Amino acid sequence: MKILCDRILQDGKCLQNKILKVDSFINHQIDARLMMQIAQEFQHRFAQENISKIITVEVSGIAPAVMSGYLMNVPVVFAKKERPSTMDECFETNIFSFTKQKSYSFVINRNYLHSTDNILFIDDFLAYGNAGLGIIDLCRQAGATIAGMGFVIEKGFQQGRTVLQKAGIEHIESLAIVESLENNKINLKQY
Amino acid sequence: MKILCDRILQDGKCLQNKILKVDSFINHQIDARLMMQIAQEFQHRFAQENISKIITVEVSGIAPAVMSGYLMNVPVVFAKKERPSTMDECFETNIFSFTKQKSYSFVINRNYLHSTDNILFIDDFLAYGNAGLGIIDLCRQAGATIAGMGFVIEKGFQQGRTVLQKAGIEHIESLAIVESLENNKINLKQY
Repeated sequence: MKILCDRILQDGKCLQNKILKVDSFINHQIDARLMMQIAQEFQHRFAQENISKIITVEVSGIAPAVMSGYLMNVPVVFAKKERPSTMDECFETNIFSFTKQKSYSFVINRNYLHSTDNILFIDDFLAYGNAGLGIIDLCRQAGATIAGMGFVIEKGFQQGRTVLQKAGIEHIESLAIVESLENNKINLKQY
Repeated sequence: MKILCDRILQDGKCLQNKILKVDSFINHQIDARLMMQIAQEFQHRFAQENISKIITVEVSGIAPAVMSGYLMNVPVVFAKKERPSTMDECFETNIFSFTKQKSYSFVINRNYLHSTDNILFIDDFLAYGNAGLGIIDLCRQAGATIAGMGFVIEKGFQQGRTVLQKAGIEHIESLAIVESLENNKINLKQY
């Protein structure tokens, strides 16, 4: 997606040869117009999948997921990191975040994930694939099908895509793929 | 906002005479089309305020804030509950959440809040007004002006509106106002 890749090269910051900061337009300050363009691209790439619901995880996946849900006219559910005291029956899984170096629970109320659902998972980053594995587990518990996974940015030099493919996800779309961050320089896959 | 009020009466759940659950369409599962209508209403109600930026707080304010940012064509910043390890200079404040009965830090990177900003704060709920007070503190630190605050649902039987008015916020808009939840029945202000 050229407009996204251009923006990453223009405004992304690189730290410690491995961290890509996009907090000026993706995950702290949000460029909502760009987010709508991102959603248009997801809508296009998953147009054949007959999606019934979008799932994301808090926090940074919410903006692209909600925009996509609007365009695709399907409900959006975000998995929560804490089980609210008022949530009754839920599906629950544990994932380890390499970024934050800690484990989280992810929970979804059982009322909002069904065996008839055909799920699109959307998130801001694909790195090690752990959030995706968590969603696979939640969908397995519910008996829901996962039609595909869409990521705004993939770190192509980490193993997330392989991990998710091995777990059975056939349709993975990343709108920008980072090939390396060596010498704190952002190298994107040719687009 | 009639369509929102009708939806609250139809799908909202009331617990313990004080908790209003709207997690089937606002803050766990999200109706993205309704969210866009909510944003249209905020755009209309704050049309005269010359907003330069929308601020919200994670997590449930993000969806209405991003939709509003899209329509109003301004950046959206969400205050984070944890300071990321990669965030340098930030504005920071502490708020107490009555809902969750604990204190949070809210942080915003200094690069994304300026003395020239004319801020609209958007959140899902107005109850005791503590998140709003936190945003007032962050904006004070940055020297930014707050033009107004918009809430999807106000608990009119709690003191949030008065608290924020006393803190100097003149323009407060709530799209649905709950007058009481007694006997676990949702009573909305006439609309």
